[in-house]
Amino acid sequence: MEQILLIGGNDSGMPFRKLPYGGYPLISCNPDHLPENLHEMAKICDVAIVCADQRMGRVIADEIWHLLRRKIVISTTPNFDLSMLRDLYPLSKVCRCDLVLDGDVDRCLAVVSFGDSFSESDVASMKRIFSSIGEMLIINEPLFQEVRAVVSKGLSSITELLKRISPDDFQEYLLGWIMYCLGQMILKGNPIEGGKSPQGGTGGLAQREPPATDPKSRDDQK
Amino acid sequence: MEQILLIGGNDSGMPFRKLPYGGYPLISCNPDHLPENLHEMAKICDVAIVCADQRMGRVIADEIWHLLRRKIVISTTPNFDLSMLRDLYPLSKVCRCDLVLDGDVDRCLAVVSFGDSFSESDVASMKRIFSSIGEMLIINEPLFQEVRAVVSKGLSSITELLKRISPDDFQEYLLGWIMYCLGQMILKGNPIEGGKSPQGGTGGLAQREPPATDPKSRDDQK
Repeated sequence: MEQILLIGGNDSGMPFRKLPYGGYPLISCNPDHLPENLHEMAKICDVAIVCADQRMGRVIADEIWHLLRRKIVISTTPNFDLSMLRDLYPLSKVCRCDLVLDGDVDRCLAVVSFGDSFSESDVASMKRIFSSIGEMLIINEPLFQEVRAVVSKGLSSITELLKRISPDDFQEYLLGWIMYCLGQMILKGNPIEGGKSPQGGTGGLAQREPPATDPKSRDDQK
Repeated sequence: MEQILLIGGNDSGMPFRKLPYGGYPLISCNPDHLPENLHEMAKICDVAIVCADQRMGRVIADEIWHLLRRKIVISTTPNFDLSMLRDLYPLSKVCRCDLVLDGDVDRCLAVVSFGDSFSESDVASMKRIFSSIGEMLIINEPLFQEVRAVVSKGLSSITELLKRISPDDFQEYLLGWIMYCLGQMILKGNPIEGGKSPQGGTGGLAQREPPATDPKSRDDQK
């Protein structure tokens, strides 16, 4: 297993903290308080994951770019696109990554893109790494914007909805389960609108009303 | 491990289909097409789980109640409360259960109540069974109504929200991840409103403000 250096994981990049559960040796540090031995850490790692804001993203690159020759560098810094990452880490194989969602979750989606410099075995490494924290979806650069827009809109809509419902703790707990389960169902390709389940509606407790109409099949979907 | 008879699991009670992954020997049948050997199945089981609508719930009880002496009977039939279940299965230890959500999910919440007839070891059995499909939450009978109301409202709100957004397949997939992750965060006790994560908001992709472009060029290093 590759030795991984995680710069972040506290405020951002939290899902990467699960890497040791996937068997990865992990060394990590806070992007806002870089340790004195950062150079040592960069030297011994095989893969560097940098979860920092734009300012610190640049500082970190300046510090360690020359120590990451031929290594994979995964960056979650917003708006650092591939070409910028190539500039910042000219000796490395760079990967741009957005996490849906970046938070205290057991599994998340990693939306990634990377350049031609990735060999097949590099891609296999990436798959192994990301399967330890969830799922990896390779997209083209222009799609990042759409992903970001959808996530931003989805999050704000759900937050608003919760504010409207203004649940107490028990209700929020139930709503947590509802979202968790609905999310699972969608990811398994089950449409959630209309009813798909037993007495007519999705979800055992829901009161089961108007049936289902012509759920979109998503079998062919990735 | 108890031998479990699952009457249901197709249209309703789907999460119970995971019981074999928890090591449970499972025999199952469709509540709407009861098999000829239903009596045999009832005789050999240790625990019976009945996921049926009210009409079939009564039919099934009439068929097998006398074969379930001292056995645990778990019922997910809506509106069958404990006292009704005691009437239907006078020889058994009855448990009322609502699933949040009842669908094709890997883990769900089982909200349950059961009477005094449950010994400590019965409760331990229940815990083991429900931990194979998710989490068990014991509540008092009157709370079922609130649970049902919250779930119903939560589901319809989210369904409406999705209709408003009217996502295409890719967007729906992203929204699935968002809900799945938000649900996880809530269940771990993280509030989702306001921002808790890195650059200011829950979720890696969410609102990061406009870039500060102008990366230093480092072409000279290539």
